[in-house]
Amino acid sequence: MDAADLTARLIRCPSVTPEEGGALVLLQALLEQAGFECHRVDRNGTSNLFARWGAKGARAIGFNGHTDVVPPGDPASWTHPPFSGHWDGDDVIWGRGATDMKSGVAAFVCAAIDFVRDTPPDGAVILTITGDEEGPSRDGTIAILDWMAAQGEVMEACIVGEPSNPEVMGEMMKIGRRGSATYTIAAKGRQGHAAYPHKALNPLHALTCYLADLTAEPLDQGTDHFDPSGLQITTIDCGNPASNVIPERATAVVNIRFNDLHTGAGLLDRLRDRAAAVTAETGVALEIEAQISGEAFLTAPGPFVDMVRGVVQQETNRQPVLSTSGGTSDARFVKDHCPVVEFGLVGAHMHQVDERVPAQQVRQLKVIYQRILERFFA
Amino acid sequence: MDAADLTARLIRCPSVTPEEGGALVLLQALLEQAGFECHRVDRNGTSNLFARWGAKGARAIGFNGHTDVVPPGDPASWTHPPFSGHWDGDDVIWGRGATDMKSGVAAFVCAAIDFVRDTPPDGAVILTITGDEEGPSRDGTIAILDWMAAQGEVMEACIVGEPSNPEVMGEMMKIGRRGSATYTIAAKGRQGHAAYPHKALNPLHALTCYLADLTAEPLDQGTDHFDPSGLQITTIDCGNPASNVIPERATAVVNIRFNDLHTGAGLLDRLRDRAAAVTAETGVALEIEAQISGEAFLTAPGPFVDMVRGVVQQETNRQPVLSTSGGTSDARFVKDHCPVVEFGLVGAHMHQVDERVPAQQVRQLKVIYQRILERFFA
Repeated sequence: MDAADLTARLIRCPSVTPEEGGALVLLQALLEQAGFECHRVDRNGTSNLFARWGAKGARAIGFNGHTDVVPPGDPASWTHPPFSGHWDGDDVIWGRGATDMKSGVAAFVCAAIDFVRDTPPDGAVILTITGDEEGPSRDGTIAILDWMAAQGEVMEACIVGEPSNPEVMGEMMKIGRRGSATYTIAAKGRQGHAAYPHKALNPLHALTCYLADLTAEPLDQGTDHFDPSGLQITTIDCGNPASNVIPERATAVVNIRFNDLHTGAGLLDRLRDRAAAVTAETGVALEIEAQISGEAFLTAPGPFVDMVRGVVQQETNRQPVLSTSGGTSDARFVKDHCPVVEFGLVGAHMHQVDERVPAQQVRQLKVIYQRILERFFA
Repeated sequence: MDAADLTARLIRCPSVTPEEGGALVLLQALLEQAGFECHRVDRNGTSNLFARWGAKGARAIGFNGHTDVVPPGDPASWTHPPFSGHWDGDDVIWGRGATDMKSGVAAFVCAAIDFVRDTPPDGAVILTITGDEEGPSRDGTIAILDWMAAQGEVMEACIVGEPSNPEVMGEMMKIGRRGSATYTIAAKGRQGHAAYPHKALNPLHALTCYLADLTAEPLDQGTDHFDPSGLQITTIDCGNPASNVIPERATAVVNIRFNDLHTGAGLLDRLRDRAAAVTAETGVALEIEAQISGEAFLTAPGPFVDMVRGVVQQETNRQPVLSTSGGTSDARFVKDHCPVVEFGLVGAHMHQVDERVPAQQVRQLKVIYQRILERFFA
């Protein structure tokens, strides 16, 4: 089954989050035809697909991916219409989702179908495909995993098919991810006239000192498998139009990508401790609220990671780096159920105008996934 | 002529900037009747009054004040309607402008009229009364002074009748003022994903370091006649709603009240020098624009200051402090034409609901101004 052809067909389903766009319907039809048991696990308007070949409770390997895509922006900016799935003479497939990640889904669906047809394993293959990875991610992979837990569906290990290679196939796989948390800092002082600062309390002075201190030193130096944690101030806002007035309030937002030395809650404690010191010194109240998107996690190198790595090396002649870099992915949810690694295409053009992928690369990825299935059950 | 009565009559003229409200018309009628030569010096919708008793070119003392007032806010919040000029049994006059500064204008107008009637001097008395002190101050005192320069009208010295006493009559006169300037700092970096800061350039990190450094040390320790200069960050704004995005731009506004060690331009140079250092270190461009409201100035203690101080001491039994504190006033324009000092009422209730003044205080101020006129021409 040709993964490049399926990629083009999936691109033609306009499945901008949260629209299903026909993508899951198409996959369900193909998978059921190939003997997979399928369940739509929809929740709060989000469409998700669970598919299993083999008996429930058998030793199972899983693949996870998403068919939803980010909006295309102005279609007129595209060389070929974003949902055309145009396939040109250079063997390149164009359109939104070409790399992120209809191609990855097509690759593992085709690999799974061919594998169970050609060499039916003594076990199960489970595919979880969501329509809410590019959105709030509340009713997508989480919903399928909740449903699986309730049904007693278990995976021994899982591969997320997100693009994982920065430049060329085989150079990187991901075995974890830094955590991500956003902290909103609200500073409250006392309003007053800029000419009489002793009668006022400037929240911006306390806030800038606090933030300058936060950014002065790195949070850590990194760990065995993780880059150093990073802190970015993403906005500061006060909105005071009067240059002769000391404002009462200001807010700042800080985003932290953190490694396995930290937790979202631990960082909140740290931020609050420092804030308390600034408040004690200045009198300005600093209140901090946290929104934790995901904790840091690691699938420790071992037999499963080594197996995937070995396949990638054999098929690409490159030894993939075991990385934990990048933004979040649904692997942060899967990791609570089983060991998870991420390997997929080259992540060029993700979320950009003229997103596109070489057909050959999709076919290569399909072969890699098929070899992983073979080795898993060997 | 009763300055308390004239104060109440002026309060009844609703002269919220830039409305003339009948206040200058009333004063012009009284002054012309008393033998003053009057000229309305209106510019760009602002009404101003110039009045001179005595010959043009004669040795002249000036008084400066304004009849425009700030808005009253919600009239329902007032004990007596803000433009009623209510005069109660406790001999207190109520209304917007009661202290700032229809009373001061009434005091010097009445003092001048009585003085030239009772003891006609060998010289001239010049009154400059503006309708644009509480507004942008572009077409008020500046307009009169421009007109005077064109006409060859000269003052040897001038008294601005703004409230100058914090608590009780006679405790403070002002012989200068700190300068005021506002600096807008625009920081420009490079937008990017918060998870990949090495591909971006966060303008907020550079800006907070820059601002924290600016506020870390005082600008100076003050001088003989001036308080230390003060710097206040009045706003920081970025407006980035996405916590996973490093923003491209942010701005901050800094207001500096500076003493005679500085100029507005000198401070701009200093801010730009420090900005250049931050840019060199971080790569973030920091562009700074200045808006200089007024330079610091001082009417050095000498015969004129001593004379006014002596009169105040004699009439109030208090030795007034020679101060340069507070916000700006139109003295910052007058100082380019002649030595200027400020002495007026107690500044309680300025710009507040239920602004009011004891009639006795206005009458005392009138006597002080009359004694100043006598001494000037003695």
